[in-house]
Amino acid sequence: MHMAELIEKKRDGGELTAEEINFIIRGYTAGTIPDYQMSALCMAVFFRGMSSEETTALTMAMAHSGEMVDLTALGDYTGDKHSTGGVGDKTSLVLCPMVACCGLKMAKMSGHGLGHTGGTLDKLESIPGLSVQMDGGRFLQIADEVGFVLAGQSAVMAPADKKLYALRDVTATVPSVPLIVSSIMSKKLASGAKTIVLDVKTGSGAFMETEEASFALAREMVAVGRLAGRNMGAIVTDMDQPLGFAVGNALEVEEAVSVLRGGDVPDLKELCLTLGSQLLLRSGIERDAESARQRLQATIDSGAALDRLAAMVEAQGGDRRAVYDTSLLPRAKVVYELKSERSGYVSAMQAKGIGVAAMHLGAGRETAEESINPAVGIVLRKKVGDAVAEGETLAIIHADADDENLRSVERELMAAYSFSEAKPKLKPFIRGIVE
Amino acid sequence: MHMAELIEKKRDGGELTAEEINFIIRGYTAGTIPDYQMSALCMAVFFRGMSSEETTALTMAMAHSGEMVDLTALGDYTGDKHSTGGVGDKTSLVLCPMVACCGLKMAKMSGHGLGHTGGTLDKLESIPGLSVQMDGGRFLQIADEVGFVLAGQSAVMAPADKKLYALRDVTATVPSVPLIVSSIMSKKLASGAKTIVLDVKTGSGAFMETEEASFALAREMVAVGRLAGRNMGAIVTDMDQPLGFAVGNALEVEEAVSVLRGGDVPDLKELCLTLGSQLLLRSGIERDAESARQRLQATIDSGAALDRLAAMVEAQGGDRRAVYDTSLLPRAKVVYELKSERSGYVSAMQAKGIGVAAMHLGAGRETAEESINPAVGIVLRKKVGDAVAEGETLAIIHADADDENLRSVERELMAAYSFSEAKPKLKPFIRGIVE
Repeated sequence: MHMAELIEKKRDGGELTAEEINFIIRGYTAGTIPDYQMSALCMAVFFRGMSSEETTALTMAMAHSGEMVDLTALGDYTGDKHSTGGVGDKTSLVLCPMVACCGLKMAKMSGHGLGHTGGTLDKLESIPGLSVQMDGGRFLQIADEVGFVLAGQSAVMAPADKKLYALRDVTATVPSVPLIVSSIMSKKLASGAKTIVLDVKTGSGAFMETEEASFALAREMVAVGRLAGRNMGAIVTDMDQPLGFAVGNALEVEEAVSVLRGGDVPDLKELCLTLGSQLLLRSGIERDAESARQRLQATIDSGAALDRLAAMVEAQGGDRRAVYDTSLLPRAKVVYELKSERSGYVSAMQAKGIGVAAMHLGAGRETAEESINPAVGIVLRKKVGDAVAEGETLAIIHADADDENLRSVERELMAAYSFSEAKPKLKPFIRGIVE
Repeated sequence: MHMAELIEKKRDGGELTAEEINFIIRGYTAGTIPDYQMSALCMAVFFRGMSSEETTALTMAMAHSGEMVDLTALGDYTGDKHSTGGVGDKTSLVLCPMVACCGLKMAKMSGHGLGHTGGTLDKLESIPGLSVQMDGGRFLQIADEVGFVLAGQSAVMAPADKKLYALRDVTATVPSVPLIVSSIMSKKLASGAKTIVLDVKTGSGAFMETEEASFALAREMVAVGRLAGRNMGAIVTDMDQPLGFAVGNALEVEEAVSVLRGGDVPDLKELCLTLGSQLLLRSGIERDAESARQRLQATIDSGAALDRLAAMVEAQGGDRRAVYDTSLLPRAKVVYELKSERSGYVSAMQAKGIGVAAMHLGAGRETAEESINPAVGIVLRKKVGDAVAEGETLAIIHADADDENLRSVERELMAAYSFSEAKPKLKPFIRGIVE
């Protein structure tokens, strides 16, 4: 088999066999296929696409390039959730304890944040004492005993994806559906859960800006996961504005806790109920959506989900009291109110701009080497559709110091808001469920 | 400027500016732009194409990546010819002395052959004593005094093309019109002639197998050459079968000499008269095609062109007597007649298969390191449209030894012939002239 001939085949619209795709990924991981051939292939895939069978073969080859986590010791009901990344997305902190209370074990590996999107691990690490590093044995033990665990990667997972993503990033071959699908799904399949649900974001703060592209991506990931033998579900949700009100690590933990206490954060709660229902339905724990939602709601009403979160925090070495008393979480030194300069309605928000503003406060990192400040961030007071009067507070900035940087963040945040005279028409937050 | 953004621009169908293209070629030649970005760009160009302005900028950037030959000392009438490569193509040996006799100076750099296509330099080197290596001063001196010179590259020409071609060869990005055009034209423009004519081959033995693709390539090269300020002409000619009858170095020199002596090799002679007319017309030496052809024919009839070839051979250190007595050229040890196994008409010939058979005899090289045998080759007795009786000679094989290899070449040669009961319809040899 010659790589140049396989590039030519894809270039001319041919379909690569699983054997050919395995040859490519094995060779690329081993270094016998050079970057310059792989980037040419990626560009050919960008233009020609891949069939679901090809994408599945690519995904499986990348998953098998590293360790495959074995969750069979946890039984038949293991779940995982993936979000394509957004601003203010603290879903895992709410969703995992809820579904764990319903008997679905979530042994979940997450990442740190980069750029304008936060990472679940950063949020967790704002809880005093909590660690996201542990060996594979402890990881499985917590998942089994508590019902869920949220940790960094304990295994060398999908090294082919890591190498390929770095190449795609510098060769303008990132936005290709089969390449995105195989990148995401290779890690999800290697993570071992039997049931996987996907939250594909759409809008200005998302990777996929149009709803059409988001649905196409969601459908393809579901198809690949099913061909690989997993129970799959996917929803497409709004990322035209941040999820919930809080953006910043400790602030987001506080907001997650508030939902588990019955607090009203409409979009976040709806997302957790919808994703949770999908997990319970797809795994076979529940048979109809209404009873799944009721069962999930009951885990909040009874306080069981909050207790389950506290149990996980304790198991991972953190201070469980912080779950019941969020004043124990780190607090920013300065709190500053951003006031509206006009009256009307919030007509649009740039989620990405708000994520960048939070990053500039120190809540996120521009490069992987930077450290973050767990206390800082932004709490929105006004979101799209809200009426606002001149001088009213749009958002509260939690900062480390009242310095020049704060002025610049204030301007970024203000620039992320758009206003109108008339009340804007709102799109539904959940754009659809992929069957 | 960032290379990843330029790849993205081309990927999305944008037009690169001359400044951007210069940045790319300078960076790639210097090594600051890596192969993996360049191959991704080439694949994007394969799918998106390039405008004539982009192709011209790319061609000029590649030409200027090395030395630009200055032919101004030779006056206003300097010509060059390029063929896209074929089997049995000894055109330069006939054409150059003819147009030199008409006042157009041909300071021509050629290459050695590779694979199934021969190289002008290999053919010339079969003449005893002749050298194709000389410094730039001597090169210009011979062109000025004799009227033409045929030599290897004396300058470091278009190094960007050399590096890029090697990359395209292993990344399935060779067959892209703008990339082919810039590869060919960068070297032609760097060679310095004011008038350039192109012979684009079409058919089974050619790089471009369809007539449509050949015309598109020819038109684009003409457009780029004109944008670069050169007088341009191009014709598309048949390469469904070899040019002339001889394939092999000394055998081709002998055939070239026979045409200059008034011998009848219809396609080769017609090609030289057509290309020669284009050179005389495009350079402004002649104003109408008919008088150009008559003037070229007169150089044969008077013996002037043959004498001019002898003068070049002598100037380049060769034995000029070999031009008048071709028995002084190297001769093969074994001559073997390939007999037809059936009666009918020759309906088709695979030019490439005949080139490969000649290569296997030792007339060409599979890799650049191999040496060749100047004496061996094939002389066709039957070409497409000829009637043939069972037992009649199809071709004469000139070989080094009567060994097993000869049997294998015989089979390859036989396989290159197709036969029919009825006389096949012949396509015209000259498919068209690009205006």
